[in-house]
Amino acid sequence: MSANPKDLLSETARVDPASVQPLPNSRKIYVPGSRPDIRVPMREISQADTRGDIGNEANPPITVYDTSGPYTDPQARIDIRNGLAALRTAWIEERGDTEVLTDFTSDYGRQRAADDKLDGVRFDLVRKPRRARVGSTVTQMHYAKRGIVTPEMEFVAIRENLRLEQYQEQLAGQHSGQSWGAALPARITPEFVRDEVARGRAIIPANINHPEIEPMIIGRNFLVKINANIGNSAVSSSIEEEVEKMTWAIRWGGDTVMDLSTGKNIHETREWIVRNSPVPIGTVPIYQALEKVDGKAEELTWEIFRDTLIEQAEQGVDYFTIHAGVRLPYVPLTANRVTGIVSRGGSIMAKWCLAHHEESFLYTRFAEICEIMRAYDVSFSLGDGLRPGSIADANDAAQFAELETLGELTKVAWEQDCQVMIEGPGHVPMQMIKENMDKQLVECGEAPFYTLGPLTTDVAPGYDHITSAIGAAMIGWYGTAMLCYVTPKEHLGLPDKKDVKDGIITYKIAAHAADLAKGHPGAQIRDNALSKARFEFRWEDQFNLSLDPDTARDFHDQTLPKEGHKVAHFCSMCGPHFCSMKITQDVREYAKRKGIKNTEVALETGMQEKAAEFTRSGSQLYRKS
Amino acid sequence: MSANPKDLLSETARVDPASVQPLPNSRKIYVPGSRPDIRVPMREISQADTRGDIGNEANPPITVYDTSGPYTDPQARIDIRNGLAALRTAWIEERGDTEVLTDFTSDYGRQRAADDKLDGVRFDLVRKPRRARVGSTVTQMHYAKRGIVTPEMEFVAIRENLRLEQYQEQLAGQHSGQSWGAALPARITPEFVRDEVARGRAIIPANINHPEIEPMIIGRNFLVKINANIGNSAVSSSIEEEVEKMTWAIRWGGDTVMDLSTGKNIHETREWIVRNSPVPIGTVPIYQALEKVDGKAEELTWEIFRDTLIEQAEQGVDYFTIHAGVRLPYVPLTANRVTGIVSRGGSIMAKWCLAHHEESFLYTRFAEICEIMRAYDVSFSLGDGLRPGSIADANDAAQFAELETLGELTKVAWEQDCQVMIEGPGHVPMQMIKENMDKQLVECGEAPFYTLGPLTTDVAPGYDHITSAIGAAMIGWYGTAMLCYVTPKEHLGLPDKKDVKDGIITYKIAAHAADLAKGHPGAQIRDNALSKARFEFRWEDQFNLSLDPDTARDFHDQTLPKEGHKVAHFCSMCGPHFCSMKITQDVREYAKRKGIKNTEVALETGMQEKAAEFTRSGSQLYRKS
Repeated sequence: MSANPKDLLSETARVDPASVQPLPNSRKIYVPGSRPDIRVPMREISQADTRGDIGNEANPPITVYDTSGPYTDPQARIDIRNGLAALRTAWIEERGDTEVLTDFTSDYGRQRAADDKLDGVRFDLVRKPRRARVGSTVTQMHYAKRGIVTPEMEFVAIRENLRLEQYQEQLAGQHSGQSWGAALPARITPEFVRDEVARGRAIIPANINHPEIEPMIIGRNFLVKINANIGNSAVSSSIEEEVEKMTWAIRWGGDTVMDLSTGKNIHETREWIVRNSPVPIGTVPIYQALEKVDGKAEELTWEIFRDTLIEQAEQGVDYFTIHAGVRLPYVPLTANRVTGIVSRGGSIMAKWCLAHHEESFLYTRFAEICEIMRAYDVSFSLGDGLRPGSIADANDAAQFAELETLGELTKVAWEQDCQVMIEGPGHVPMQMIKENMDKQLVECGEAPFYTLGPLTTDVAPGYDHITSAIGAAMIGWYGTAMLCYVTPKEHLGLPDKKDVKDGIITYKIAAHAADLAKGHPGAQIRDNALSKARFEFRWEDQFNLSLDPDTARDFHDQTLPKEGHKVAHFCSMCGPHFCSMKITQDVREYAKRKGIKNTEVALETGMQEKAAEFTRSGSQLYRKS
Repeated sequence: MSANPKDLLSETARVDPASVQPLPNSRKIYVPGSRPDIRVPMREISQADTRGDIGNEANPPITVYDTSGPYTDPQARIDIRNGLAALRTAWIEERGDTEVLTDFTSDYGRQRAADDKLDGVRFDLVRKPRRARVGSTVTQMHYAKRGIVTPEMEFVAIRENLRLEQYQEQLAGQHSGQSWGAALPARITPEFVRDEVARGRAIIPANINHPEIEPMIIGRNFLVKINANIGNSAVSSSIEEEVEKMTWAIRWGGDTVMDLSTGKNIHETREWIVRNSPVPIGTVPIYQALEKVDGKAEELTWEIFRDTLIEQAEQGVDYFTIHAGVRLPYVPLTANRVTGIVSRGGSIMAKWCLAHHEESFLYTRFAEICEIMRAYDVSFSLGDGLRPGSIADANDAAQFAELETLGELTKVAWEQDCQVMIEGPGHVPMQMIKENMDKQLVECGEAPFYTLGPLTTDVAPGYDHITSAIGAAMIGWYGTAMLCYVTPKEHLGLPDKKDVKDGIITYKIAAHAADLAKGHPGAQIRDNALSKARFEFRWEDQFNLSLDPDTARDFHDQTLPKEGHKVAHFCSMCGPHFCSMKITQDVREYAKRKGIKNTEVALETGMQEKAAEFTRSGSQLYRKS
């Protein structure tokens, strides 16, 4: 990219117009907390009233979790050249345990800042980086262990509750869940959040250098979250495209975004993404470290890796995938696998270990890594570098040896008050999924599990969002806290915007199905509202309450495009004269006329007797033998 | 449609060219049985050899189940105006228990045949219908109970085995399944098929008037099957389109097809579909019966319904959905549901029951229905007319009352040697799915369960192939024998060809994931082959072994279109210098050089000691507390 002022990205960059339209019939609301600067964003979807034969009643607006940030707020002034407002700055400052640095402290960060040739692609950040004062720890876990409820904790408590107090009536009919030992409270309080963070059962990824985020929480006793991966590669895509993928991913429900860029300018790309992201950003620092040694894994050193961690921590990355469980003795355990080591980070470290015949520096230097993490509150995402890449390799010795080491490292990190989550597989057939979850809970002391799928079969490249959504829904039900999405392009190519959206919606389905199955309080409210709208032929409400109103509306219109059909009491499946929903309304009216008020008294007098009589004669008729 | 000779469908109808291309690198094979006219079709996918650093070896061709019929056989002469060859005629004739009728015996069938105005749309069938001789029962169950192994039974035994004897080496590495009480044999014999059919645990839908089918079996101890629904409606689509959807559905893996047409000319549409279908065809006769009374449910009579059963049985429909469990006393149990009665058949019968204040004629006349079914070997698919249409209504009193009645009726049908499967829900959250399966097994004596999804959440119209694939994979694992597909258009509109394919592939994934989880012998062979191809960068083999080679290839080419890239040892995700698969090959070579032969001896001498030593010191270093 040229440094011609006319072409400067910081002058010309534009937000994707498709990401700033409010969703239909939706209103951004901010639920206030205990202080004026705690304003928790949610989306409120309004509904039409019920009218007609089936009665007249108002349908309440439905409150849904909103990851889209200010982009969907018509009041917000969006300019990606300036980035988002730094909501958390006051919270961080008032804790008095950080200092503003005069400059970046990583060699690489300073070098990039000084490179004139990068002027054309650099985000114009005026703010200086921040770090813990010497001797201080600035992690949410640190505060939590000391009994401090931070504004971040209060924020996520309000966010998780989704104004449940307004939906007590709707709550009554929800099915009992099967939570497999999770401890879902009826109402999430700031104190509950603090306690979960203190015991390591949940994390709030929130780097002090990413004050733009709207805090969120990842833990088995909270709503199941999803992550979207974006990132350019040596082969394709640009900085603006990556920012566009990020705003697109959060529009549809990405709770965190991982930037897996491996091409050139990844430092600058990351800066643009972090400054414009209201959700936590994760990275895999070893990818960039490898770029710095021209892709030669054996030339990696602790010093280069350490500098990369500091570089990225000072940009504001909220969690790092660190493959510290890929230990030298485990590497040969993969030699006879069908698909060897499929994790990029895992294979890099395996190669390094073998080249040097030395234990991984990520393992031997783990205590030093913790020191960096706690100085910025970067959360660990302990990588599963030996995850299975095929059904054949699921739950093998290499995978479980690594998981045990991740458990050991979790305890080391916790001692330093670092927040930790654990990455999980991969490719696992259904009958072997629960073993993964159970082992992770035991080995890692209930630290949040963060899984990729798992894919439940290998035979459907092009559809691995689906092969993996099956596994993701199940492992989410069993206790996984965050699901890393898989797009239709997995194994085949780089996802474009359509793939990102397909992956996100598919994983929102898996996460929500898991919330329902666990019995998360209030999870069924949206299902019930949408189904009621469907039953009452409130087509617009059905579309608007769905995870993807655009697609629902488009699919409907492909068969019945006329506007009038959206208020018609029939649909394209059955046509106007032959509609099961219509007939059911008749049944309901009949039951009403007959005075049948609820299922307890549903068997009408007389009818019940007739039925009994019929059963007796029928039994005689049919039960010949 | 005009009766102008030039426009006669029987003169002009063409097969869909997209359905007659053989799949890439695939060859249609016919495995011989004990007699010359038993030739069981399968698809053999050839693979390239492994070459290069990782060794040199031949990769065996993989055998996969093939539902596509003669359409993908280049030797076959396809002309949908003539229909398919009648493979089973000799088998049926030699049993000597049927007679060829001089004409259709249903009033409606005769009336349509005599109507000149229909000449333009009528399939030109010369053959006359066949029926059991008076006093004979011609069902596969009847023969099975008498110890007779029919050619149909031998055919399905060969088909289910997929030449497993050639893959003994590949079998060894398969994971143990969790079959939840299924009795999967290591090898499926004709005698095993007979026994399963005799005890009602499996069905072979095979109407004596549909001699064109390649027999298949539905039961919990066989491969999980999928059904595709097609059908025009009052609103859209034509006869040729429906035939095209059928050939398209079986190309991608539909094991049976249900024709749910509700518009005009459904008698003629059905004839075209049956004559050209190598897979069993199912219908819901009450839909057509309702057409005959102009959509007025209350005007339905037993006589009209009976005539419809005979009309369709003589066309060759292989199974009928009959909602005989929607009993009068159960109807008011639905009055307070969120979504009432969503089954079309169920709501029709509910309306009839209420209008007449009488027990359903499907229930009171069930014994007479059995008499018709067994005279043609039409299998029952006992409909779940009271299935839940929303998460809120799952597993409620109405649903389970009906299921208990279906269990009662199953026993009645079995006494008459009728083959039976049981339809299941619907919308069910994950934690409530297993209860459905368990209750079905108990109430219905292990008669095959045939479920629609279930959908695990209501919030994603436009993606209900996915919300339901999650539930379908799980219930398939738990024991469901056939999964009825759901397309992306569910709840919104009529599926087009793309939707049909999306639904099919999604359900093939669910069914295959279930086979893997149950531990079906050989189920993992295709996964292993595809993963090995992926690991070895045999891109073409990866595409060809996938459920949808066209999409896999297309997705790859969107990022890396050049032909050369398909043999390159890298992919678009990581680029040429940074590839985990490449690094893993290095690891494997290293392990080989070091003489590490398998995982049992994977911990190298020395390395093991080092690791132990490291762990000791590491423990000291890290375990401070």
